[in-house]
Amino acid sequence: MITAQDATSTLLVSCRDKRGIVAALAQLLYGHGANILDADQHTDVDAGQFFQRIRFDTRELHTDRVTLSRGIAEVAERFGMTYRLSDDSQVRRVALFVSKYDHCLYDLLLRHRSGELRCEIAAIVSNHPDLEPVARQFGIAYHVFPITPETRRAQEQAELELVRSLRIDLIVLARYMQILSAELVAELPDRVINIHHSFLPAFVGKKPYHQAHEHGVKLVGATAHYVTAALDEGPIIHQDVVHTSHRDSVDDLVRKGRDLERTVLSTAVRAHLEDRILVYGNRTVVFR
Amino acid sequence: MITAQDATSTLLVSCRDKRGIVAALAQLLYGHGANILDADQHTDVDAGQFFQRIRFDTRELHTDRVTLSRGIAEVAERFGMTYRLSDDSQVRRVALFVSKYDHCLYDLLLRHRSGELRCEIAAIVSNHPDLEPVARQFGIAYHVFPITPETRRAQEQAELELVRSLRIDLIVLARYMQILSAELVAELPDRVINIHHSFLPAFVGKKPYHQAHEHGVKLVGATAHYVTAALDEGPIIHQDVVHTSHRDSVDDLVRKGRDLERTVLSTAVRAHLEDRILVYGNRTVVFR
Amino acid sequence: MITAQDATSTLLVSCRDKRGIVAALAQLLYGHGANILDADQHTDVDAGQFFQRIRFDTRELHTDRVTLSRGIAEVAERFGMTYRLSDDSQVRRVALFVSKYDHCLYDLLLRHRSGELRCEIAAIVSNHPDLEPVARQFGIAYHVFPITPETRRAQEQAELELVRSLRIDLIVLARYMQILSAELVAELPDRVINIHHSFLPAFVGKKPYHQAHEHGVKLVGATAHYVTAALDEGPIIHQDVVHTSHRDSVDDLVRKGRDLERTVLSTAVRAHLEDRILVYGNRTVVFR
Amino acid sequence: MITAQDATSTLLVSCRDKRGIVAALAQLLYGHGANILDADQHTDVDAGQFFQRIRFDTRELHTDRVTLSRGIAEVAERFGMTYRLSDDSQVRRVALFVSKYDHCLYDLLLRHRSGELRCEIAAIVSNHPDLEPVARQFGIAYHVFPITPETRRAQEQAELELVRSLRIDLIVLARYMQILSAELVAELPDRVINIHHSFLPAFVGKKPYHQAHEHGVKLVGATAHYVTAALDEGPIIHQDVVHTSHRDSVDDLVRKGRDLERTVLSTAVRAHLEDRILVYGNRTVVFR
Repeated sequence: MITAQDATSTLLVSCRDKRGIVAALAQLLYGHGANILDADQHTDVDAGQFFQRIRFDTRELHTDRVTLSRGIAEVAERFGMTYRLSDDSQVRRVALFVSKYDHCLYDLLLRHRSGELRCEIAAIVSNHPDLEPVARQFGIAYHVFPITPETRRAQEQAELELVRSLRIDLIVLARYMQILSAELVAELPDRVINIHHSFLPAFVGKKPYHQAHEHGVKLVGATAHYVTAALDEGPIIHQDVVHTSHRDSVDDLVRKGRDLERTVLSTAVRAHLEDRILVYGNRTVVFR
Repeated sequence: MITAQDATSTLLVSCRDKRGIVAALAQLLYGHGANILDADQHTDVDAGQFFQRIRFDTRELHTDRVTLSRGIAEVAERFGMTYRLSDDSQVRRVALFVSKYDHCLYDLLLRHRSGELRCEIAAIVSNHPDLEPVARQFGIAYHVFPITPETRRAQEQAELELVRSLRIDLIVLARYMQILSAELVAELPDRVINIHHSFLPAFVGKKPYHQAHEHGVKLVGATAHYVTAALDEGPIIHQDVVHTSHRDSVDDLVRKGRDLERTVLSTAVRAHLEDRILVYGNRTVVFR
Repeated sequence: MITAQDATSTLLVSCRDKRGIVAALAQLLYGHGANILDADQHTDVDAGQFFQRIRFDTRELHTDRVTLSRGIAEVAERFGMTYRLSDDSQVRRVALFVSKYDHCLYDLLLRHRSGELRCEIAAIVSNHPDLEPVARQFGIAYHVFPITPETRRAQEQAELELVRSLRIDLIVLARYMQILSAELVAELPDRVINIHHSFLPAFVGKKPYHQAHEHGVKLVGATAHYVTAALDEGPIIHQDVVHTSHRDSVDDLVRKGRDLERTVLSTAVRAHLEDRILVYGNRTVVFR
Repeated sequence: MITAQDATSTLLVSCRDKRGIVAALAQLLYGHGANILDADQHTDVDAGQFFQRIRFDTRELHTDRVTLSRGIAEVAERFGMTYRLSDDSQVRRVALFVSKYDHCLYDLLLRHRSGELRCEIAAIVSNHPDLEPVARQFGIAYHVFPITPETRRAQEQAELELVRSLRIDLIVLARYMQILSAELVAELPDRVINIHHSFLPAFVGKKPYHQAHEHGVKLVGATAHYVTAALDEGPIIHQDVVHTSHRDSVDDLVRKGRDLERTVLSTAVRAHLEDRILVYGNRTVVFR
């Protein structure tokens, strides 16, 4: 549940570890009158890398947000930081990509409606017309881009233009059964989230539940990750599993998997929208 | 906790599915005066395969156990069954194979002492002398077979002879860091249980916690399986996972993994000793 | 996923434990040409009580279902059994009772549509008009019975008549915030399922998430149970919990609880619809 | 796994929330040359209370630890902080209290030996002689204080003197079946950890597994908490549960419970030893 967001900002920072980073940022925020509500920090000692998430209240700023931003930019330059400063009153614009399965779509839409996901769902995009009625129920525009080998290039171009024209900040692949174009992935680095229906890196590729059944494994899993050029191999955000037994047919695994996919995907999307995730190399830091 | 076992038997059966199997077995047991305490059955419809576990009380048999065994053998032949009949008063003789890690060893010894594992631990076998003091504490014979490329053949032969002379029914590889000889594996089919410290089939082979850390996965797992000729690929008995985060170093993964390894291995060993596992193809049926 | 159901039946049996029950039932089914697909049995040794669930295929019956039913009735009488025989082609008629929360309602409706719940949802009943649009989306009749101290008696009577006229087999209280009338509970013994938003018996009564937060517990739970005259105390069918931390506000507990309530309730409803539950005393046997 | 601890310190702080706390502490540490390795902060907005844990490296201090301590004391006074500063090179002295069950005792001793618990186990205290051999195996002094209604006062006094003379920092009640004296509890506020074998607040008091079985619950739990004057009601540190079914006898619940008790207790003890826990009111903040 999110409240009084208009007056909070979140700063996500990563840089080479160095003495004085915490003090410099805390001092800066204090100097401008910002009140730190939550701060979480992690240092990867092996990699020598520093990560921090700070959420602060801006209702009693002595200066204004522009001046504060400039101050943060100066500190960032001094320490060689990569950073992202989000004003929590500016909600992200999200596009949901789907094909024919509706369980993840419904889950995200219902959570959004109950206030769990702080964003605007600007569009639902699909390669099939099937889920248009769901979009209509929730009053969201539905865009169909049917993809065949011949139309692929043109459709991908149209998708990219739609994403640009709608100023989309985040794409969620909610069981979207097409591979995104390289241009689209490049357009939104670390801002396309996919749900893979297995515990990666086991069972990469197609029909993971069939693979799991074939192997006689006693667990099935789901993995939410950022999409990169390498299929099923982007940085993992969240994973979970559920126990299975010899009684479970492939259909049972699919059913159990549906529940997992919903919760794993929505957990990852929420973490992203709340600015809890930092990517480094092929890994993530996910602050709670 | 196991009580009044002297008077119970367990029958494990598998065969091609056919009408009348359940009735034939139930009728036979009833006819001999056996009282069924627990019966669990599973049919793999796709494979057309029938599985059943029956535990029954033999205190009021009209006949004797020999006559009952003969009756079961006849029904088994009629239906083309593979079966195993265990008299619960005859405890299995188990050998624990270890190297230098003691957590699984201690766990099995303590559970055995508290009555969770119905068996006799006849020997602890190792390629190192390190854990001899633990064996001594629990009053169990400790046999060391140091293995070098030169001594390997001779030592494996000696191990095999020990296993034979002690009439071992089950070998448990409790973090044993050597590959068993093909002869030893062949000697005890579906009766050698290994603990692999990852969620198979992800991270096959060496240093799985390092692999997991490298991949940035958000879960680590452990897998107990029967040992076959193919390394890390025998039928899976039990698996479990635990959540991890960016805060976990490789050492933390190792620590979390130790807890998993203990419970996953002991769960599998207990299921085996209670005659709950049937192997078919490369899979298991594990009755609860 | 459910297939070829038209040709299967499920028999649920409980009685005092006695020799020969399993054989008598198996023999009877075999004699009529029924093929047992699944059989699970449990004996509560302390209580001396026997429980069994048998699912069998009736496609190659030598006789007909009526004759088979008569045979089962005879065996039941001989052994003093309580039993329920369900023809899997006859789907149950379910009424969902709701108030203002929609998460459990949506969850049940979506699972029903995806084939997870084998039943007909004959009506949605509420004391508020709020969720009528959801009912309309799924094409289900929505009945409003606003309840005030003055109207209570009349409305309860109207509800009872609706339930009777629709021939409802199962009522699911999907976060229904009124106490059912004693008559309605008596009308459908062991056939009204409620979801309580705590781990019973902790936090009985109102506002359990507030109670949990107050106590500083590190887990919140949900409990699905059959409704009896005693509030929040009927036989428990299923329970689950989720970890919480000091970071969780009451609102966070409510959010985490919503996810639990959905899965715990739908798991219980599915077990009921698949004839997996036997009630004895204030407990349940839930066959998997 | 803990390394290079000699050069780190941990500061735990709580106070009324106020602007500038984070900056003041960060600035102070930076000014003295301390390098912050980990910092985690939480504000309970409802209670208006601020909590922080800072772990820092002291190898390159410009001043010395005494000067730094004085600086921290000044800041603490300015903000009205309660705080605890621990030099990680000074290991805590722990006393384990046991009765006849050995599973938690073994678990703590083995984890200590494998380096998971940073402390010195200075004594094992019991009201029974039974577990003396375990103490001897691990080379730890074992003190027996048999307690009868007549000897209680004298024995409690002797226990208190032992705890004082051994300069014990933490008492762990590892299934100790006596109630500690009020003096002993008062001697070590928030420094006596107990394991209760149920999910508190359900099943307070004796024989919780019997109570759970009686109620037909589908989960059993365990709770680690600080001991206060009110029995089974001190601030909860950690809790967990495991699923159960109708097949589980009371003995099975006890067995499943043993596994839970071990992991829940050791998790709580480790959090305490790593200075991750702050108590406020009857609740805890447990930083990860």
